[in-house]
Amino acid sequence: MAAVDLELDGLEILSPAECWALLGEAKVGRVGVSLGALPAIFPVNYATAEDAVVFCTGPGIKLRAATANAVVAFEVDGFDEDAGTGWSVLVVGTCSETDDTTFLSDEARGRLRPWAGGGRDHVVRLSSEFVSGRRIVASAGRE
Amino acid sequence: MAAVDLELDGLEILSPAECWALLGEAKVGRVGVSLGALPAIFPVNYATAEDAVVFCTGPGIKLRAATANAVVAFEVDGFDEDAGTGWSVLVVGTCSETDDTTFLSDEARGRLRPWAGGGRDHVVRLSSEFVSGRRIVASAGRE
Repeated sequence: MAAVDLELDGLEILSPAECWALLGEAKVGRVGVSLGALPAIFPVNYATAEDAVVFCTGPGIKLRAATANAVVAFEVDGFDEDAGTGWSVLVVGTCSETDDTTFLSDEARGRLRPWAGGGRDHVVRLSSEFVSGRRIVASAGRE
Repeated sequence: MAAVDLELDGLEILSPAECWALLGEAKVGRVGVSLGALPAIFPVNYATAEDAVVFCTGPGIKLRAATANAVVAFEVDGFDEDAGTGWSVLVVGTCSETDDTTFLSDEARGRLRPWAGGGRDHVVRLSSEFVSGRRIVASAGRE
């Protein structure tokens, strides 16, 4: 696994607890799915609950991935472009559509309202099977 | 294609020219690749040149995708979390590693310096085969 070690050079690995704390603070994440043989990435506003990422969508690519119980990637990040620092968290897991939203807090329900409006009333639950996070070590690229 | 129409409800479709203008302004994008059968998304700082997205990486997942000439997704976005508005641009294309960086401007070279440092000296060129962009129609979700 030397390649992975090298890829992480200059990056601090975040603990799962740190990852979930960051997931709880951000409002927009990106869902990575396959559309046929082609990859695609779409931003969504989302909420977290019970080690899952939850978002709403309309009848389209993201919902098809969800109803197929596809494995998808979900990423959130934050960067300071001037300082050249930042962090990212990646969640990989299985999606499913759910009608039961009783596991969501009122605050989470508020976060789920789709910014784009327009009939995005399907609730998709991404069950986290893998979470990882990285933070750029301050000044790592400034030597 | 009714599903696609619905998915775009509440979203303005951006022209390729608008997409490239936004790609030229942002500094951080996200690369979507497959790691074995699992999807993953990694942020990178990048530059654009000649209808291509260029980024640097170390010997790892992103470089393996590049050297395999894999089709990858690349996404940039910008959001106003308080207003609930934003935009995103998706580029899909084939990656390849390149030793020739003469097609890059000095400004682009400056953007390519990896923030995380650490031996990320492989230049990957993502040749755009498909670009699309969407912008949330102001107040679309606020009815």
